[in-house]
Amino acid sequence: MTEPAEKRLRELGLELPDDWAPRGRFLPFRKDGPLVWLSGQINEWNGAVTLTGPVPDTADGIAAARSAARICALNLLYRLRTACDGDLDRVDAVVRLGGFVSCLPGFSNSPKVIDGATDVFVELYGDRGWHARTAVGVAGLPGNAAVEVDAVIRLRD
Amino acid sequence: MTEPAEKRLRELGLELPDDWAPRGRFLPFRKDGPLVWLSGQINEWNGAVTLTGPVPDTADGIAAARSAARICALNLLYRLRTACDGDLDRVDAVVRLGGFVSCLPGFSNSPKVIDGATDVFVELYGDRGWHARTAVGVAGLPGNAAVEVDAVIRLRD
Amino acid sequence: MTEPAEKRLRELGLELPDDWAPRGRFLPFRKDGPLVWLSGQINEWNGAVTLTGPVPDTADGIAAARSAARICALNLLYRLRTACDGDLDRVDAVVRLGGFVSCLPGFSNSPKVIDGATDVFVELYGDRGWHARTAVGVAGLPGNAAVEVDAVIRLRD
Repeated sequence: MTEPAEKRLRELGLELPDDWAPRGRFLPFRKDGPLVWLSGQINEWNGAVTLTGPVPDTADGIAAARSAARICALNLLYRLRTACDGDLDRVDAVVRLGGFVSCLPGFSNSPKVIDGATDVFVELYGDRGWHARTAVGVAGLPGNAAVEVDAVIRLRD
Repeated sequence: MTEPAEKRLRELGLELPDDWAPRGRFLPFRKDGPLVWLSGQINEWNGAVTLTGPVPDTADGIAAARSAARICALNLLYRLRTACDGDLDRVDAVVRLGGFVSCLPGFSNSPKVIDGATDVFVELYGDRGWHARTAVGVAGLPGNAAVEVDAVIRLRD
Repeated sequence: MTEPAEKRLRELGLELPDDWAPRGRFLPFRKDGPLVWLSGQINEWNGAVTLTGPVPDTADGIAAARSAARICALNLLYRLRTACDGDLDRVDAVVRLGGFVSCLPGFSNSPKVIDGATDVFVELYGDRGWHARTAVGVAGLPGNAAVEVDAVIRLRD
């Protein structure tokens, strides 16, 4: 994947959001050497949650939540771009994603939901975008969002 | 923030707890190079959980849980002091907090709760205390505690 | 602990699983320098979940879930062996475990459950196996599994 990330985003029809206010007192990311620790991002866009939880354990419910997970990934990319001083090509590896799905007891399909976030990173970065991941179903998320995803990213030296 | 951390703690009226027994078989922290990985700490004090879950999604419930999150932070600082061989001024950066709030389905205010833990680190360390963070609502926590927080901390070389 | 890990596994009567397909689009691990980030593993064996959630908050329920957590650890070790190019003796330190227990609201014994995973690493690696840990109870896990565990591991240089 040698194509510039911004060009690739456009080809994929992916648009990063405008800036928005965090829902608590924390940084959008913390850099630690070459690693960027990205704070959890929910599926919000222009200040509005796009899908609320709990996510139904049905095909339609999972598909809608997978789209919500894509939005989480776009929000993470927005914050990541800032961490990269505007240059998303500085990403060397998506190391790890943590995915949380708001659900009722017994929800079994968190991996299918979080795949929506994974796909964005893989579509954009190819091999560099593949990552370790943990996906779980939780009782509630900020703003009653359906999905939240955080990430650890390695930048090039 | 050049003031010694112990002096700053006293000025803030913050007292670290006495030692206590973990509720399972794990280390209170693991050092890995300059990073300290702190195990999750619940809001317990002198062996007693100070507030049990689930946290009600009301102003009073959130305020009580935010106080509980402060206690989690004090417990983390106690363990961190050991990791620093007693010298809390060796902290270079609070890299990341993970916050878990015991709640019923649909709880939407985990960020407001976990702000209570964030505030302790920021009050104590200023800029060095700001961090990436992920906050979620979960079904149950050790000892039926209301809040659990873990952390990744960078020490000075 | 200078005994070879594979010999130690046999002495402990521990068998690693055969290969299996992940339940989503992610890598089983991502290496980042000397660190291996292992994706969350549920208690599945030969493609079947060995115990489903929610885990009852009873002595029997906790004991069964603790056994399930051992299986999560064996699955993690299988993936870790691949990350080590087949040589489990390359493990320098088990840095951190994250443990998730599928439960109903108010479940308070996640540490006792996740101890089952911790024990495997400590039995196998001794001091090198001890780690920081965070254990929480969640609303649902992949495949409706009872337990999920992820890990960060340091390899020798």
